[in-house]
Amino acid sequence: MEFIVTRKEVAELAGVSEATVSRVMSGVGPIKAETRQRVLEAAQSLNYHPNAIAQSFARRRSGNVGVVLPYVPKVHIFSTYYFSEVLSGIGQQVKEMGYDMLLMFRTPGVESDYMRIFRSQKVDACIILGATDTPGEREELRTMAEAGLPFCLVNQHFAGERFPEIDADHTEGSYRAVRHLIGKGYRHIAFLNGSPQYSNSGDRLRGYVQAMQEDGLLPEAEAGEDVIGAGAVPPHWYYEGNYSRTSGYKAAAEMVRNRERIDAVFASNDRMAIGLMQGLREHGIVPGRDIAIVGYDDSEAARVTDPPLTSVAVPFYEMGRLAAESVLTRAAGGSQTGEEASPVSIKLETKLVVRQSCER
Amino acid sequence: MEFIVTRKEVAELAGVSEATVSRVMSGVGPIKAETRQRVLEAAQSLNYHPNAIAQSFARRRSGNVGVVLPYVPKVHIFSTYYFSEVLSGIGQQVKEMGYDMLLMFRTPGVESDYMRIFRSQKVDACIILGATDTPGEREELRTMAEAGLPFCLVNQHFAGERFPEIDADHTEGSYRAVRHLIGKGYRHIAFLNGSPQYSNSGDRLRGYVQAMQEDGLLPEAEAGEDVIGAGAVPPHWYYEGNYSRTSGYKAAAEMVRNRERIDAVFASNDRMAIGLMQGLREHGIVPGRDIAIVGYDDSEAARVTDPPLTSVAVPFYEMGRLAAESVLTRAAGGSQTGEEASPVSIKLETKLVVRQSCER
Repeated sequence: MEFIVTRKEVAELAGVSEATVSRVMSGVGPIKAETRQRVLEAAQSLNYHPNAIAQSFARRRSGNVGVVLPYVPKVHIFSTYYFSEVLSGIGQQVKEMGYDMLLMFRTPGVESDYMRIFRSQKVDACIILGATDTPGEREELRTMAEAGLPFCLVNQHFAGERFPEIDADHTEGSYRAVRHLIGKGYRHIAFLNGSPQYSNSGDRLRGYVQAMQEDGLLPEAEAGEDVIGAGAVPPHWYYEGNYSRTSGYKAAAEMVRNRERIDAVFASNDRMAIGLMQGLREHGIVPGRDIAIVGYDDSEAARVTDPPLTSVAVPFYEMGRLAAESVLTRAAGGSQTGEEASPVSIKLETKLVVRQSCER
Repeated sequence: MEFIVTRKEVAELAGVSEATVSRVMSGVGPIKAETRQRVLEAAQSLNYHPNAIAQSFARRRSGNVGVVLPYVPKVHIFSTYYFSEVLSGIGQQVKEMGYDMLLMFRTPGVESDYMRIFRSQKVDACIILGATDTPGEREELRTMAEAGLPFCLVNQHFAGERFPEIDADHTEGSYRAVRHLIGKGYRHIAFLNGSPQYSNSGDRLRGYVQAMQEDGLLPEAEAGEDVIGAGAVPPHWYYEGNYSRTSGYKAAAEMVRNRERIDAVFASNDRMAIGLMQGLREHGIVPGRDIAIVGYDDSEAARVTDPPLTSVAVPFYEMGRLAAESVLTRAAGGSQTGEEASPVSIKLETKLVVRQSCER
């Protein structure tokens, strides 16, 4: 049992209005330094915590937002651009809404048990990152959706389901990247995809195939053949890594064997593009001069590579913010009354950022 | 109340030994695919969670490790190399020890209330990142230390206190970086420091001054003058940023004014070094050719800049792991019996990684 101090008491002790207390605590609006000091001292002497109050109002159980992450031993997950940006966005939003952020790592080889996360009452809402499309995963997500629990997927779409999802339009992003290469006169464009178990890898493949087919750059499909999947792409143009730099580096060795049939590469993320550039250089092929490269993510590294990397910017930070806002709004609202909230599904735009790696 | 399934029950259902169950769950040791499948199915059908059991054994209250982070609006904190690596290390270790990770952001302008974090029972142990040396902060930390609570500071030293700390030897790291420049024949070495409120900024300054003094490269100190602080360094060699890339970029404009008195720069982190390189280049000064640059952190970006950046590698990931291990060991051990655990204070080695940015 904690005694909760209110804004009113702080206002009285400091001799200011309640609105002034709010302005000082939120840091919004102009405040005289002296007034600010007086309010902060009053707040401190009373042990006033705006969040504790918000907490009691919202009748929350834990004050935590859960974030489920993949666990990959030895991979520094927060150091990957994708996760660091999404988590930064989530962090910003949960902080603003007065919550803490509980990170939970999946156990490799063990099916996720999302219901258990809610049952444990350690979180009031949950954001799921790095989900993959498996039957067990679908089943778990369906159970949560049917229970009306406030959860949200980021950057993973489950075709045929109506799960709450915050995604980016990776098909369009990839399409534009490849169209840019075609516009620059490249015709022999290879595609380095990431792990196929993510829906956004499939999206990128789709964008690549559409862009290439538009100019008839892929071989005609036979009747009944898959016209969008990897099957539509000749093997000397299709490579697969796992989004790591090392996998891009390894792909370089394979590509070198088809060197005379490739004049450009579209890579599914910057990490792989950077590994690829390094690998190609070791084979005497200079990126930007001898071969065009386009990456994906527009990570910070893209700006400092030699040559700087053309890349597709994805608003990961914004996606994190939206995911947090969406689950917390649902957690604070209807979920406890049993009403079924309509699932949020948002798809954000990407943007091609042109640099020197494909400007011959 | 949850019913907890044990390893024994899983072993019985799968018809294997308990040791085999452990090997499958931990992923360690060779296991036949078929056996593995059987164990996983048995575990799933019984809803077996190895972590839930560990949890009940340890009589923990929350199963969470708290991590306190600075909150800086608009800064993508997980995208900075330092935080991403430390958090990756903490994440790996807490996962291995069966805990979740509760991230708590400080409220800017409000004094930290660490005791409240423990009183809230949301965490069993706490790691504090980005602490700064203020009287209020010291007071809070002393209160926690006196209460024998399992907490730990990372990368911040409080002189005169015996707080549990995991730090790196930044003085030695900086000393070696500057000695390397001197060994390469540079004599006019400027220092670009980060925010002075962090003890590790002071450490770097100390290392720089020691290295320069060893060859008499700094002006003689007057009697009674500060021989280690920034006062020992002539103003045309001392610059200060805030560890951001932008602040390094801005420093370039200042340095250009003292161009003829500078032939090398030691920067307190890679982000500032990269901003600096960019700024210098815009003034027609080519890093690596016209001026030597050494960074600090050995972040991934250091490998891909043009030229690749010589930098001081700090084992941030390892520091995060050690911090988590240390607080969790203490949380599981003596803290509840009232015994005073002796505070852990560890200082790890750094390593100079030489690349092309200072090889004329």
